[in-house]
Amino acid sequence: MKETFSSPTPKIPVAVLGATGAVGQRFLAMLANHPWFVVERLFASEQSAGKTYAQAVSWVLETPLPDEFADRQVESLGPGLLSKLDDIPIAFSALAASIAGDVETLLADAGLLVFSNASNHRMDVDVPLVIPEVNPDHFALASCQSRTNGGAIIANPNCSTIGLILSLAPLYHAFGIRRASLVTSQALSGAGLVDGAILKLNDNVIPFIEGEEGKLATETGKLLGDLNVGISDDGTPNFKVENATFPVSATCTRVPVTNGHLLSVSIELEEPATQQEIEAAWTDFQGLPQERILPTAPNAPIHVLKDRNGPQPAKHSNLENGMAASVGRLRPDAFYGENGSKRRGWKFITLCHNTIRGAAGGALLNAELWLAMTETE
Amino acid sequence: MKETFSSPTPKIPVAVLGATGAVGQRFLAMLANHPWFVVERLFASEQSAGKTYAQAVSWVLETPLPDEFADRQVESLGPGLLSKLDDIPIAFSALAASIAGDVETLLADAGLLVFSNASNHRMDVDVPLVIPEVNPDHFALASCQSRTNGGAIIANPNCSTIGLILSLAPLYHAFGIRRASLVTSQALSGAGLVDGAILKLNDNVIPFIEGEEGKLATETGKLLGDLNVGISDDGTPNFKVENATFPVSATCTRVPVTNGHLLSVSIELEEPATQQEIEAAWTDFQGLPQERILPTAPNAPIHVLKDRNGPQPAKHSNLENGMAASVGRLRPDAFYGENGSKRRGWKFITLCHNTIRGAAGGALLNAELWLAMTETE
Amino acid sequence: MKETFSSPTPKIPVAVLGATGAVGQRFLAMLANHPWFVVERLFASEQSAGKTYAQAVSWVLETPLPDEFADRQVESLGPGLLSKLDDIPIAFSALAASIAGDVETLLADAGLLVFSNASNHRMDVDVPLVIPEVNPDHFALASCQSRTNGGAIIANPNCSTIGLILSLAPLYHAFGIRRASLVTSQALSGAGLVDGAILKLNDNVIPFIEGEEGKLATETGKLLGDLNVGISDDGTPNFKVENATFPVSATCTRVPVTNGHLLSVSIELEEPATQQEIEAAWTDFQGLPQERILPTAPNAPIHVLKDRNGPQPAKHSNLENGMAASVGRLRPDAFYGENGSKRRGWKFITLCHNTIRGAAGGALLNAELWLAMTETE
Amino acid sequence: MKETFSSPTPKIPVAVLGATGAVGQRFLAMLANHPWFVVERLFASEQSAGKTYAQAVSWVLETPLPDEFADRQVESLGPGLLSKLDDIPIAFSALAASIAGDVETLLADAGLLVFSNASNHRMDVDVPLVIPEVNPDHFALASCQSRTNGGAIIANPNCSTIGLILSLAPLYHAFGIRRASLVTSQALSGAGLVDGAILKLNDNVIPFIEGEEGKLATETGKLLGDLNVGISDDGTPNFKVENATFPVSATCTRVPVTNGHLLSVSIELEEPATQQEIEAAWTDFQGLPQERILPTAPNAPIHVLKDRNGPQPAKHSNLENGMAASVGRLRPDAFYGENGSKRRGWKFITLCHNTIRGAAGGALLNAELWLAMTETE
Repeated sequence: MKETFSSPTPKIPVAVLGATGAVGQRFLAMLANHPWFVVERLFASEQSAGKTYAQAVSWVLETPLPDEFADRQVESLGPGLLSKLDDIPIAFSALAASIAGDVETLLADAGLLVFSNASNHRMDVDVPLVIPEVNPDHFALASCQSRTNGGAIIANPNCSTIGLILSLAPLYHAFGIRRASLVTSQALSGAGLVDGAILKLNDNVIPFIEGEEGKLATETGKLLGDLNVGISDDGTPNFKVENATFPVSATCTRVPVTNGHLLSVSIELEEPATQQEIEAAWTDFQGLPQERILPTAPNAPIHVLKDRNGPQPAKHSNLENGMAASVGRLRPDAFYGENGSKRRGWKFITLCHNTIRGAAGGALLNAELWLAMTETE
Repeated sequence: MKETFSSPTPKIPVAVLGATGAVGQRFLAMLANHPWFVVERLFASEQSAGKTYAQAVSWVLETPLPDEFADRQVESLGPGLLSKLDDIPIAFSALAASIAGDVETLLADAGLLVFSNASNHRMDVDVPLVIPEVNPDHFALASCQSRTNGGAIIANPNCSTIGLILSLAPLYHAFGIRRASLVTSQALSGAGLVDGAILKLNDNVIPFIEGEEGKLATETGKLLGDLNVGISDDGTPNFKVENATFPVSATCTRVPVTNGHLLSVSIELEEPATQQEIEAAWTDFQGLPQERILPTAPNAPIHVLKDRNGPQPAKHSNLENGMAASVGRLRPDAFYGENGSKRRGWKFITLCHNTIRGAAGGALLNAELWLAMTETE
Repeated sequence: MKETFSSPTPKIPVAVLGATGAVGQRFLAMLANHPWFVVERLFASEQSAGKTYAQAVSWVLETPLPDEFADRQVESLGPGLLSKLDDIPIAFSALAASIAGDVETLLADAGLLVFSNASNHRMDVDVPLVIPEVNPDHFALASCQSRTNGGAIIANPNCSTIGLILSLAPLYHAFGIRRASLVTSQALSGAGLVDGAILKLNDNVIPFIEGEEGKLATETGKLLGDLNVGISDDGTPNFKVENATFPVSATCTRVPVTNGHLLSVSIELEEPATQQEIEAAWTDFQGLPQERILPTAPNAPIHVLKDRNGPQPAKHSNLENGMAASVGRLRPDAFYGENGSKRRGWKFITLCHNTIRGAAGGALLNAELWLAMTETE
Repeated sequence: MKETFSSPTPKIPVAVLGATGAVGQRFLAMLANHPWFVVERLFASEQSAGKTYAQAVSWVLETPLPDEFADRQVESLGPGLLSKLDDIPIAFSALAASIAGDVETLLADAGLLVFSNASNHRMDVDVPLVIPEVNPDHFALASCQSRTNGGAIIANPNCSTIGLILSLAPLYHAFGIRRASLVTSQALSGAGLVDGAILKLNDNVIPFIEGEEGKLATETGKLLGDLNVGISDDGTPNFKVENATFPVSATCTRVPVTNGHLLSVSIELEEPATQQEIEAAWTDFQGLPQERILPTAPNAPIHVLKDRNGPQPAKHSNLENGMAASVGRLRPDAFYGENGSKRRGWKFITLCHNTIRGAAGGALLNAELWLAMTETE
């Protein structure tokens, strides 16, 4: 029998850090009218502090700025931050990497659960890096953060990693993966305006994104890794992720598209499989978010498209409110031999909304699952 | 000592077939004021026939429609075609595949040299498929076309293949290639409006281009193949291309960019090489077009870019008037082992202007080299 | 007390003409699950006939092709057309102007109500050209079409005219208008691929759209015209529209935007008005579709935006499912004198979804209102 | 007989302020190999100081970063600035408005000629705001800047004003202008990244640009104003511009186009004119830059296009290396009456490269003409 988390009464107050950026806006759009959470405080950089949210933000989403936030005060992250978070148990972080590391540590040390979209702590050995359908058992890592007040940092992966892993995880567990190579066509909405850099993004492709190719490789290893449990000297359980070790070779490019990271993926499977077996693995893929019927969970994390022209960012990024990945064009790779219709080498296209499932929505679903798992333990 | 073809006096009259399309426009832009050729006749579809070129064309190039063509009559390809080509020894074909096959055969049978950008005859065993810097010896295949009047069809490869092969050929000859995989980000200007199809190209990526992935694989085999010479029963020499056999695995996508096909390439070399060795192979790459100083030849067919953000379609497509390919971001692949700085697995980005070097310019350079080689034989 | 049309039981069968084009797709997306109508037959050009809809269409909308249409047969418009329409009282036409004229006449003569998006009959003296909130009394014109079997052609205006008139009508009736000038920034989705024309639409502005500037002027005159009733010689009432006569000066440009025609408008009012009075005229604007609570009617036909950066196509085209126009940036024009805060010269921006409210949705709302008015007569 | 400025030997050393931004890059691209000037020093913000130019810049132009600047040191604008400018008589300023005002005053006070693209001083009564073909006599204003060391600030207009005035000036002087209204479609390359603002620029139109509409009106008045000469109390001549007073009503929008501001203009002339007379006024338009054959001057400042689809940003922005404006689609306005073929109301489209003629090239041509006029006085 399915167990679902009963909606908390009253709602749980949360803070949003980095509320004016593209991901911060997504957090607010998804938290407006959320059945479990209510946004109590909005934090952003010094230059936004003291303004109303409507004044501070340059709202870029296709849906309107939710009325409930328009007149809310934006606060700064500076001195006195903790005093503003007294009764707030959860923070969602859309902070830039330049400041996220310290602020998130500060908040977790103060007892908050920090669901973070920043890259700083993702590869920390005691920080769960979680996609809820893929590796929710990794949440246990947080118990190693040696915080006794309930505080913890829980990370979600990079925006392009999420789409990759949603498509790889079912295959990894069903057939094993020997290697994966991929080329990304990443949307503009995830591109921060770093260092005032101006790039010619219109009518162009930029075949380099700082740090992105490395993140795809290292985060994949951790996300598909096994959680090992040991016993510490003091008798408490001790968790460690043993990373998956197959090589991931990524090339990351930026294309003039508003939303949706598209990945062209080639894989070599450990065990040969047929097209039908692979598609079935995707179609049947379900996880705890679906089992618990979490508020932000898609019905199906992966949609297998029949149209040979898909997936396309403009048409499929918003499937299931942007929380579902889509895959298409599954076809044999020229490599890795052949054995009847069973083969090791396959190619496909996958797509994921970069600021919803790939960022704010990923963190939000982590928070929902964390609460649901905690309650029913 | 370098031998160059002396400019013919008077210029050689040529015809352009399919003169109003995107590639046809490039032919005219490149043939205006050409030192060797003069355009005598313009052919296009029935609906353009009888109009002036300026009336018939929807000129899309960034350079203006050359004045000399504005008032020229566009003629149809229908009955009486041959009679209009009486004194014209050369035709450049930018015809759509739906009609190119028959028309090009008709003209070659009538004694014309047809330099074709169409796909129909590329893989015919007796049709040279040539990139002038790569496999000019393949021109010899044309002698097998059993035409005794000098007529022949000479093809250039698909627009995305040319950039790929310009970057692979030096490596193939220096180190051997065991396999190549690539993902294309192709510009809009090469997309025909097939069957009135409407596609959502703006703010989108279309991860499928009909027939393109197959062309990249099969054309690569032929272009990098060896020309074998035998003796026919009648004692004449007999040419055949033995295709290169390494597998090529391509994924082709369309991106909202005006000009320039960008390819993200991974290769496994036969012999391990260092970064310096590979870059030197590209930098040193020269061919007959450079040796003969042909009018349309770039000084360097391949430009190795130092900027880690390049090559970019908007910035590098027009290098050497669009006749040079560019490569960048050479870096180790995660695959295929490692041996000090020498390794087999490498990744890089390459870019080529799809309607200049990848189409009209490729055919024009074929024609120039054919003439230069014929004279100096 | 409001009277609403009771949902017909069973639903009314309708046909969609030109079902595979961009507007035809919108018709189907809006008719799927419509409470009053059920699509019985899909018609398109000869080359689509015999295919399933999924095979025939290149679906471009951001919402998926409705399942109910995927396997439906597409039929041709050729001989035998009428026999396929035997029990179908209503046709929605998204036909190209090249064929719409004759086909629509044929169907109306056969007794169908043809709600048409084509331009052919818009200016016919006996064809109602209607925006339901603006001039529903013009429906009466149809009685002059001298068809005694219930057949009639009812037209909706050009995609850019609708947004203009929704914003002008309340001001015209409240204050009078002496002149209007406007520059359009029109989206790509309304651009037919006429004559195989290729235009450089990416990263460009095309400052000319065939016939569009004239349509804006002439259709405005008819839409804001008064319906005059006379008595024919035979004693029946006789309707005629006396066109509004103020001059409309339009410049039409195409911009690389997917959906949403944006208009920069300047007007000279007959009676000076204040900013508040004008905004109130827009905000208070309601018509019969709102009064009757028609299924496709927006709650408010015009949304007055407060954000000085709006309206923007990417953010405001889909207001009320694309059925509402938005206006913003109302500010004094430099012209036409001043009288305190009351003045005659004003400028503003207005935006309307070109294929929803500006095309398929406009025709659908006409059909809904026609039925509702007919029932309650 | 034409007098041209003899090329100075040695070249005149110049500094570029704000060298890393989009306009700064244009300055360097145009100053590389300039026959009169040699760039001695590059200044940019604090975060670029100490880096080489190649390190500091994110080069966005379609032409490569000139080799001569790649390894040049970028210096800061902070303390000690003047000491670095000891032997440099001319500075080109591409500074942001937030700092341009003070820095430019500092340099002019120190004896430099500052040719500025910034808006700060444009409307100062003693600062010449000059388009060289239009109002070179306004240079005389600089003598009122009460600097006795040769220092002065000379401004060029806003990027969208330049295209407007190039098209209006010949008509203003031939026929007089009673009013002008215009809507701009402005390219992205001129959009500064103000305040870290993120705007949804892709696949969108933003119908508001801070301060732009006002600049178009006020700068037009000054540029087309008459230079009045008086006598000061001390007997020296005293210059003052009497602004043109016809109203200019502008709407400014941003479109997703890389380069080229397109303006849709309506005018009412003082004296009625025919289409031929207007086109002749444009075609015949020449100024001192053409007369003196200045290095950066276009042969014709205005190109009258015959193609009804033009001008288009992608095709006509680069006419004469981006230094010529283009006009097209001249046609009667619906307003202002008619008198045979002579009429007062006309509409047309004009286009100007926003960062070349509209910014860096405009300032450079000002400098060239200033020197040429000074020498021959």
